[in-house]
Amino acid sequence: MKSFDERLPFVLRHSSIARVDGDRIYTLDRRKYPFEVLFYEIRDSLDIYRAIKDMVTQGGGPLELSLRYLSTLGDKDFDYIKSSVDLIVSARPTNTQMKRTLYGILERFGSKGIKELAENAIAYYDFLYDKVSDYGETLIDDGDSILTTCFAEHTFFLSLIKAREKGKNFRVYVSETRPYMQGSRLTEPSLRELSFDAILIPDSVGPHLIREGKITKYMTASDLAFKSLKVVNKIGTLSNAIAAKVYSIPYYAFSLGFDDRSEESLVIEERDGDEAKRVNGVRIASRESRYLYPAFDVVDPEFVSAVVTPDGIYRRDAE
Amino acid sequence: MKSFDERLPFVLRHSSIARVDGDRIYTLDRRKYPFEVLFYEIRDSLDIYRAIKDMVTQGGGPLELSLRYLSTLGDKDFDYIKSSVDLIVSARPTNTQMKRTLYGILERFGSKGIKELAENAIAYYDFLYDKVSDYGETLIDDGDSILTTCFAEHTFFLSLIKAREKGKNFRVYVSETRPYMQGSRLTEPSLRELSFDAILIPDSVGPHLIREGKITKYMTASDLAFKSLKVVNKIGTLSNAIAAKVYSIPYYAFSLGFDDRSEESLVIEERDGDEAKRVNGVRIASRESRYLYPAFDVVDPEFVSAVVTPDGIYRRDAE
Repeated sequence: MKSFDERLPFVLRHSSIARVDGDRIYTLDRRKYPFEVLFYEIRDSLDIYRAIKDMVTQGGGPLELSLRYLSTLGDKDFDYIKSSVDLIVSARPTNTQMKRTLYGILERFGSKGIKELAENAIAYYDFLYDKVSDYGETLIDDGDSILTTCFAEHTFFLSLIKAREKGKNFRVYVSETRPYMQGSRLTEPSLRELSFDAILIPDSVGPHLIREGKITKYMTASDLAFKSLKVVNKIGTLSNAIAAKVYSIPYYAFSLGFDDRSEESLVIEERDGDEAKRVNGVRIASRESRYLYPAFDVVDPEFVSAVVTPDGIYRRDAE
Repeated sequence: MKSFDERLPFVLRHSSIARVDGDRIYTLDRRKYPFEVLFYEIRDSLDIYRAIKDMVTQGGGPLELSLRYLSTLGDKDFDYIKSSVDLIVSARPTNTQMKRTLYGILERFGSKGIKELAENAIAYYDFLYDKVSDYGETLIDDGDSILTTCFAEHTFFLSLIKAREKGKNFRVYVSETRPYMQGSRLTEPSLRELSFDAILIPDSVGPHLIREGKITKYMTASDLAFKSLKVVNKIGTLSNAIAAKVYSIPYYAFSLGFDDRSEESLVIEERDGDEAKRVNGVRIASRESRYLYPAFDVVDPEFVSAVVTPDGIYRRDAE
């Protein structure tokens, strides 16, 4: 049996997210993939800051890259490490998981060396991915047509991989996920790499396919999930989740754990609309046009069938 | 007061859709607009066939262009005109309005000359646009935030223009409308040309804005509307229509008249996915990926508040 890492698609392997080579770390440039396979060179925390800000890496990438970088700082003192963490976290303050994990390591600094703390954290995330996907796999049935949005990363891919290892056959429809096209550039190529039956669609097509009975389940990752089953995820999730409810198919969101902040503190990031007026560097809207691009959807619990966590599947109470 | 035609945005004026110059007709190339303002030269019905097939013109463009072309055939016999109509109609058999209108003219050929029949038809459509927009205007309130999809052309623009002339202020959110970007390329630039308050959004953002209470009405054209209030329109319409129902705002569809075919005969065109893998000529998905692009949504009557026609506003019975 292949190792945990070897079963994953290229984009998600440890060696693609953060490969240490001498005093440098290399991370796959997700902006170029799959049209070009380029690695971005990291020498210090400022390079990580830039890689996050410029979307060289995204999703779970920034956290793993940062942890791998911390693991190389065995000869640095606490102040150096802390200022590195402060800089990295400032690149994406809305990534609460990265913030919590990196500051958690600083709190335990001294109990163990930074190398051990950081490597343990990477291993712990692999453990969480494995647990979530053990539960996720059980939600996939032979003959399913699964719709997904954005790039649901390890938990989703491992669920699919484990389902196939159990002999289940299924198809995956992938929303292209404007404006960054994570569906077209990451999810669909990664599914194809693993020889899954994958079909790409414009973001607007999901509800149409659900209405036609061509989708049996909607599954995504989540940027945040609350115990109420309120879910925050990439823009585009809400339209499919609502259609799933209306046309009676389940929506399952994957999460590494419920967020314990109050839901009222939720602030949705509005990203620079100018970014969205280009695709692969080519202008697709007028320079003068105003473009609004809120990055995340908030999906109310009534549209979420269950949240899949490392501790099990939390279902909405039957209505 | 400006004429009917002068109040319209550039793209919708008669002189942009079909301008006769000597023995040629020129039609605005909607594939390039607004990045380039180019006119495509029409000499005969084969050129019209190509212009329709290649999406040089779309929406109501093919019909008006064809009518203008017929109006120049005063010296041709019935067989020549009929073979021209056959060729033109074969370019987009799903455009039932064009088919019905052009064959209707053939049926009346002889009662009047082809020039008069064709020019009367163009004037009749202007009359219908005017009537629909008289009703459409009444649905717009001061302070509205209207969401739209694709390019709703004359009826929608005239409704907005008349509402503003009555002193109403409102904002329009425009879905970019992947894969052809009619929202980014036609609707938003045309709204901006007329100094309306217009904001472009990715297609996935509509339901998010509706949920946040930022949209008061959803309005679109319709490719087909049935007396049951079932509506067929550009893919992406369904997701917003469902969200409108769920979050209690109205969805109004504009139509030049109900279709009298049986709803069961409805076949949704699935266009070539390869077209959708490029934007402005640039690849946005892998050559090897499979891409599914159904061109139209079917919106069930439960999600349609009213259909606005030349004969009045047909509302869904209160529930």
